[in-house]
Amino acid sequence: MTSITTTDPATGVRRTLDLEETDSAGLAAAVSAATAATTRLQALGRTGRARLLESIADALEARRDDVVAAADSETALGSIRLNGELSRTAFQLRFFAEVLREGSYLEAVIDHAGDTPMGPRPDLRRMLVPLGPVAVYAASNFPLAFSVPGGDTAAALAAGAGVVVKAHPAHPATSALVASVTAEVTDPVVGRAVSVVYGYQAGIDLVQAPAIRAASFTGSPGGGRALAELAAARPSPIPFYGELGSINPVLVSPAAAAARADTIAAGLAASIVQGGGQFCTKPGIALVPAGASGDALVAALASAVAAVDAKPALTLGMADAYRDGLASLAAVPGASLLSGGSASATGSTSPAVVEFDGEELAGRLAEECFGPVAVVARYRDDEHAARLAAGLPGTLTATLFLEPGDAGVPAARAAVTASAGRILYDQYPTGVAVAWAQHHGGPWPSTDSVHTSVGATSIRRYLRPVAWQNAPEAELPAELRDGPVDFPRRVDGVLVLP
Amino acid sequence: MTSITTTDPATGVRRTLDLEETDSAGLAAAVSAATAATTRLQALGRTGRARLLESIADALEARRDDVVAAADSETALGSIRLNGELSRTAFQLRFFAEVLREGSYLEAVIDHAGDTPMGPRPDLRRMLVPLGPVAVYAASNFPLAFSVPGGDTAAALAAGAGVVVKAHPAHPATSALVASVTAEVTDPVVGRAVSVVYGYQAGIDLVQAPAIRAASFTGSPGGGRALAELAAARPSPIPFYGELGSINPVLVSPAAAAARADTIAAGLAASIVQGGGQFCTKPGIALVPAGASGDALVAALASAVAAVDAKPALTLGMADAYRDGLASLAAVPGASLLSGGSASATGSTSPAVVEFDGEELAGRLAEECFGPVAVVARYRDDEHAARLAAGLPGTLTATLFLEPGDAGVPAARAAVTASAGRILYDQYPTGVAVAWAQHHGGPWPSTDSVHTSVGATSIRRYLRPVAWQNAPEAELPAELRDGPVDFPRRVDGVLVLP
Repeated sequence: MTSITTTDPATGVRRTLDLEETDSAGLAAAVSAATAATTRLQALGRTGRARLLESIADALEARRDDVVAAADSETALGSIRLNGELSRTAFQLRFFAEVLREGSYLEAVIDHAGDTPMGPRPDLRRMLVPLGPVAVYAASNFPLAFSVPGGDTAAALAAGAGVVVKAHPAHPATSALVASVTAEVTDPVVGRAVSVVYGYQAGIDLVQAPAIRAASFTGSPGGGRALAELAAARPSPIPFYGELGSINPVLVSPAAAAARADTIAAGLAASIVQGGGQFCTKPGIALVPAGASGDALVAALASAVAAVDAKPALTLGMADAYRDGLASLAAVPGASLLSGGSASATGSTSPAVVEFDGEELAGRLAEECFGPVAVVARYRDDEHAARLAAGLPGTLTATLFLEPGDAGVPAARAAVTASAGRILYDQYPTGVAVAWAQHHGGPWPSTDSVHTSVGATSIRRYLRPVAWQNAPEAELPAELRDGPVDFPRRVDGVLVLP
Repeated sequence: MTSITTTDPATGVRRTLDLEETDSAGLAAAVSAATAATTRLQALGRTGRARLLESIADALEARRDDVVAAADSETALGSIRLNGELSRTAFQLRFFAEVLREGSYLEAVIDHAGDTPMGPRPDLRRMLVPLGPVAVYAASNFPLAFSVPGGDTAAALAAGAGVVVKAHPAHPATSALVASVTAEVTDPVVGRAVSVVYGYQAGIDLVQAPAIRAASFTGSPGGGRALAELAAARPSPIPFYGELGSINPVLVSPAAAAARADTIAAGLAASIVQGGGQFCTKPGIALVPAGASGDALVAALASAVAAVDAKPALTLGMADAYRDGLASLAAVPGASLLSGGSASATGSTSPAVVEFDGEELAGRLAEECFGPVAVVARYRDDEHAARLAAGLPGTLTATLFLEPGDAGVPAARAAVTASAGRILYDQYPTGVAVAWAQHHGGPWPSTDSVHTSVGATSIRRYLRPVAWQNAPEAELPAELRDGPVDFPRRVDGVLVLP
């Protein structure tokens, strides 16, 4: 057995935990527990699962100080941010309780038997049921909200699916602590609904475990692609829901740059350096007009970013990758480093702005560089801006700074928003509200474009439809029997409210 | 250029058509047309697209006799069946017009800016938009309803996506004819919204074309898996929606066998031989109790099936595969061929029943054999039936024959329905109603378990969510502006009807 170690990014001190890499027997036990919990979660019903989610939220908040301290010692993200993240984690657990009680997510439909132009139609009733046990691969940058008790886990439990989380190696102690808090709530009700496994091999084996029916991943394109290929190559392939990062373009129109260069620059700088630039929604590239007001914006941005202190990266490896990323950005012909930007041998990163003055985005410029850096690409006119934007891959977000009634740069606007999952106006993409209307996804590499990993509809990833044909009433799930129900349902083509 | 040939399965006569295998220039033109049509279909709006779908349905019905004659000469499915299939094709085009007018499919959500326990939330609005141009791989066994103008195409056009169909080589002339009928309707309105490509290489290249955003396939597990791997290996992977066949188990309880062996056997025989057994919902395996009433059921089934004449298979290759399949079924230890069952050198297949008397389903028994054959597996008790059912893969359907209040074989019932997309009671799985409540999918190999390829919700495969944050009213799609709308929409967490 290999013991697990953890490192405090603030001090570089590494310690060995009372945890071991999960072996095949441990993985099998975790998958088996998730399978058993799936049956019991489903039997618990919507109300029972809503209460369970709320109890987990309560339990996490009751251990707030311990959890925040554990997470800070492994991420150096600081108490304010981590307290906020714990609140977010509890909020989204409670939000899914609300989604369950509302009940639309069931997509329940009743078509009574009847005549159609095609002849008689049988009685057909449809709703969504849990897909089965789910694998969740935790993120490095959100040790709570996108980790063991995070959004994927909350959505899966709401759906009625047991979960096996592959802990991120950057915060194993936090993962073990919150797993024990969660287990205290779940074990008496449905058994071990959320298990945690540790180590590279366990992660490889988890996505291939026959009982696992879906996998969710938040991380790098390389790691995500490898897991997606394993999911697809199974004897029985399963859905893979990846969120592999994003470059999050920002387009500033000439009119907006002229009207408020300083305000836009200040907000942009704050968004770029927030959380050490380690957000999947960090604005990675800004298209800014050539000329005086664009110059003023870039100068203000570079100066604001340069004034921000260096911070510990989540891991030494991420600091190294940031150093390499900065070097490769600066090496692109037409690119120049405007402000500091460095990574120390002890793992601190200082923010940077890279300016690009070229015709088309090439190579590294159109890829995410994880850390506190943004590229500012200068454009001459709409056609040039659109050409720059056309070089971008799919993104989680696209942000537009426009003036009221602003008709400038129409082609660039179309190009920058064409492959984005969320389109923002005059706001900054960091910060992803947990809401009914949220969408956090986008075309590749911000997969899965068809589903979201944040918000009410993220539950859909862990459900599958089942239709019942000509079923006696006693054989139907309660949600599909005739008579009044407490959730919206479509009956004979007509949506009916409770 | 390689000319396309077609063969009449009834006569074996092969002729060369005035069609050629699509080369790379032809494929590029088709993808380009679908891309342009996607923009124009979206601009047309829900009502415009509904009218377009209805016009295509009208045009196909206006050419009914020609289309049915063309399809019969390439499939030998007969005029009654093909007239029914054309009616189904028109019906589902009109059904999607209804889905568009109703508007729930948009999943429109408005969350106004407000305070939450997490602090202020921005204004967020979400709805589904077309994913982009779609590739459709036509099926052999439904030359209309799952081919050029079929369900995938109807759903994609409804979503606002242009389509490139890879024609099935078993009915190229029919494909070309219905494509020309469709083009007469679409070309003046949105350009060539549905293009057809021919040939193996065009099929391989189509799923890899960068502009294509999703692929749908109805066919064999081998072909589907190969295309799924190509879709996943793209620089920018896309969703692959496969429907790769199914074994469709039927469970007859001891009480049902005792009460109505003859009725069940007669219906089952008709379902097995319908369309030459070439339906993805053909019941491929029946679990029937040992003992006298089970014996009576099996005898009646074998005799009914043996009385059915041989029919031309869709292709000579399928007849060969049927012959091989029968031989490998009969070679399984414990299996025996009860009735005729053969495939002639001219491509006719005659129906068969294989009885299996063993402990567990092994190898070939748990795989679909395309053609008019079913396996009857005899079970001693609930535990034995459950063990047999546990050997089955995911299926499109599972059928239960039970008596009122029948509590027999509970473990077998659970096992046989666990991985099915549609669960039927006292009816037969062939015949898939186009309805709001339909689900035609299931765990692998009846992928995609998360989505359906028949019914209202099949449109969801070709849509992706987009969220707008803090957008000025003029920037929002009309469907997301404040004020009354003519479709259901969620506003601040509450579903509101028009």
